[in-house]
Amino acid sequence: MIDSIRDSALYKIANPESIAIFGASNKYTAMGTGILSSIMQMGFEGRIYPVHPKEAVVQGHKAYSSVLDLPETPDLAIIVLPTLVVPEVVDECGQKGIGHAIVVSGGFSEVGDDGATLEKRLKDAAARHKIRFLGPNCIGVVNTHLKFNATFLPCEHPPGFIGMASQSGSFITQMFDYLGRYSLGFSTGFSVGNEASIDIVDCMEYLAHCPDTRVIGLYIESIRRGRKFIDTARRIMPQKPIVAYYVGGTEAGGRAGLSHTGALAGEDRIYDGVLKQSGVIRAHSIEELFDICWCLGTCPLPKGNRVVVQTHSGGPGAVAADACSRNGLELPAIEDGTKQKLAEYIPHTGTMNNPVDLTFTNRNLDYFVDLPKILLQDKNVDALLVYMMMPRGMILRVAESMGVAKEEAREAAVKFIKDQSTQMADAMRNSDKPWIGYSYYSMESDFIASLYKAGAPVMPGPNRAARALGAMGQYVEMRNKIISLN
Amino acid sequence: MIDSIRDSALYKIANPESIAIFGASNKYTAMGTGILSSIMQMGFEGRIYPVHPKEAVVQGHKAYSSVLDLPETPDLAIIVLPTLVVPEVVDECGQKGIGHAIVVSGGFSEVGDDGATLEKRLKDAAARHKIRFLGPNCIGVVNTHLKFNATFLPCEHPPGFIGMASQSGSFITQMFDYLGRYSLGFSTGFSVGNEASIDIVDCMEYLAHCPDTRVIGLYIESIRRGRKFIDTARRIMPQKPIVAYYVGGTEAGGRAGLSHTGALAGEDRIYDGVLKQSGVIRAHSIEELFDICWCLGTCPLPKGNRVVVQTHSGGPGAVAADACSRNGLELPAIEDGTKQKLAEYIPHTGTMNNPVDLTFTNRNLDYFVDLPKILLQDKNVDALLVYMMMPRGMILRVAESMGVAKEEAREAAVKFIKDQSTQMADAMRNSDKPWIGYSYYSMESDFIASLYKAGAPVMPGPNRAARALGAMGQYVEMRNKIISLN
Repeated sequence: MIDSIRDSALYKIANPESIAIFGASNKYTAMGTGILSSIMQMGFEGRIYPVHPKEAVVQGHKAYSSVLDLPETPDLAIIVLPTLVVPEVVDECGQKGIGHAIVVSGGFSEVGDDGATLEKRLKDAAARHKIRFLGPNCIGVVNTHLKFNATFLPCEHPPGFIGMASQSGSFITQMFDYLGRYSLGFSTGFSVGNEASIDIVDCMEYLAHCPDTRVIGLYIESIRRGRKFIDTARRIMPQKPIVAYYVGGTEAGGRAGLSHTGALAGEDRIYDGVLKQSGVIRAHSIEELFDICWCLGTCPLPKGNRVVVQTHSGGPGAVAADACSRNGLELPAIEDGTKQKLAEYIPHTGTMNNPVDLTFTNRNLDYFVDLPKILLQDKNVDALLVYMMMPRGMILRVAESMGVAKEEAREAAVKFIKDQSTQMADAMRNSDKPWIGYSYYSMESDFIASLYKAGAPVMPGPNRAARALGAMGQYVEMRNKIISLN
Repeated sequence: MIDSIRDSALYKIANPESIAIFGASNKYTAMGTGILSSIMQMGFEGRIYPVHPKEAVVQGHKAYSSVLDLPETPDLAIIVLPTLVVPEVVDECGQKGIGHAIVVSGGFSEVGDDGATLEKRLKDAAARHKIRFLGPNCIGVVNTHLKFNATFLPCEHPPGFIGMASQSGSFITQMFDYLGRYSLGFSTGFSVGNEASIDIVDCMEYLAHCPDTRVIGLYIESIRRGRKFIDTARRIMPQKPIVAYYVGGTEAGGRAGLSHTGALAGEDRIYDGVLKQSGVIRAHSIEELFDICWCLGTCPLPKGNRVVVQTHSGGPGAVAADACSRNGLELPAIEDGTKQKLAEYIPHTGTMNNPVDLTFTNRNLDYFVDLPKILLQDKNVDALLVYMMMPRGMILRVAESMGVAKEEAREAAVKFIKDQSTQMADAMRNSDKPWIGYSYYSMESDFIASLYKAGAPVMPGPNRAARALGAMGQYVEMRNKIISLN
């Protein structure tokens, strides 16, 4: 385990001040060109040196025919060249004194024996010059806080707090817009590829020390250094939670095809055990992985597993209660003192059981701010789940019906929704117990979209909310156990 | 089992030519007013008679102080009045000759003994006049094809094909915008409330005969007529699939609170058995219920459980393969003949195993139309899952980089996405085997939004896609079994 982020082989890979890029040109369908476009588009402020055998200028940057000609030794080389020439180029980078690289090129060990031979040559070249590198066969790295996006897809969202290492590049680049929907994002995302020099354990160590990372996410198809993985994770997790999604990888498909599901299930159980032993929370889908990261990154940890569900609709309340009980959570009875405080808010058609169901209120701020605060003060309650929905059509209709002109009604509704969501998000963020929203709505609702923007965790549906809250409880449990053994 | 939709007690409730409404006024926060607003807003073309003790005109309609004064006997009475007066008003409706009602008012058996007494009086009054009614304590009905929305939330989406009966009104009204996101909607949705006269079995019978309904959805907290439910479902399901989401209801919350999870799990197993015996597909969330309805309503039935996954990204392919194997689906090997046809499309970095992974192509239409068609011709393949994503940012960047002006590039990208999605959706709809898309993107992607609009089933994520496809297989299996026993 490293002592400082600067000791990590990944430091200069994720935080370069200057880069050499091989394979970028003025041909716009080339992968390397795409990566350089992304780097420029996100606004990277470091120095950029394209290396190209023929072009004098690449995308506005002076190009060099050899890395040896560069006016300085860059921190990082990004290599997107045909497989065969990669070992030689790495050798040249070494001659120039470059210590770090990202090898995007594929065609190495993933394609069989010939590729494995080439990968050996690549590793030898790197070893000769003590070069540490990400890849080969990877999709690059993104450090949103440095505005450094060295992947071929544009990242057009604000920086985030999820530190990710992935054995599939897609679960970095193709998640930019998915996470952006919820106003989430990566702090730093690593696509590890074939892990010939740097593996997922190295990424975990880097992310453990990364000040912009609140929670670590992993996509795993196979763990190479099992013992080291377990030890490292156990050392990191008391300070920073780790969430992993494991699937058997592309092999799973092949095997599923051959109906070897028994073998698959066995392997699955082994990984389940390894993750438990590591104190790593296991997610069962990419969406679930990010849900759990979202809650862990925005909420305080729960002290226990007792949840109160607040709703104004019976069905969504019942579903949340059911989902809670399926995720190891309890719904305690509400204290008498709390009931007395609730009395003035809840109509006779409502119920003060748990779920607390208002059935109907037209005092919205009570529902969204005052009531949750009362419920969270209950000493039997460790966390709060609030059902959220506010149909703009309904607000508009009421405003228009009251004689407000159409355009004014629209403005009033927008302002109303903005105010309500801001106040609620503030209260959620300042809560000392986890306070999570759930809704069937997403971007089609101004209210929910506005909550996302304000940094409030609003899970898509009650089942995902209960699962994320349950996972937070699992984390606390594993953490207590691991701390007690240290 | 009824022989025709017109024999159903629900026919005049869902298809009235004229309605009397009690409880609508010019006071805009009242529930009854909201319902009348919804009815008018959706454009109901029948005759509307508000009954109000004081107002002469209600929302532009001449009002009557007594139902007895109406110029005709309306098909349907909608009652949104204080609990105590409801039995009496039903009696008056009977005197006028009205045969059908929706009782929205709550405060009946759901609130305890006093309410149960009132519900008895309500039932007696209805029985005296042979009135059949939905409710009490329900949220109404929506028949989108008749533009008849008798619920208090606006429904601003096109008609759909999901026939729904729900023991929670929220899972009708609060799903309008959720379903609208995917260009889905209810054909007819019934909120059944306390089921004092009409229950969920009656709804199933109606929906079985409803020509606009392709698939029946149920939200169940408890089944009242168990035997009748099973017999009816078994008779309906060979022609029209039924999908149900069961949770233990609001009771579940109370019991979970008392930690009686053992009892709950027991009850859950009983319901599981009842649904299996009924040939009803069990969903495990509301979202899953609608996913399954979406696929069943837009795809032909699969002949078997062999699925091919098409992707251009390893991770999303692996996850889909893994999810398929967890949902009873197999990934067969691709036939040699198919491989020969694929050869010209797939680069050397790709793979013709299953998942079929292109890794990269810039011939988009091949990916979205030609390749799927080749794969579906394979005689080992019963269904196709295609990973879908098309980042507009990427298309824009390429267009701009090629010297196309910014505004033109934007237009070109919009047109390109529109063309591709239209052609793909056409091919999907005309396929004789199920062809389902999956994507992590939704409304933030023009491409995915455009596919929704064109009626193509694009599931949110690989896990939900595999589950929906698995459920289709379960349906076919149950159907074959039930048909063979008849």
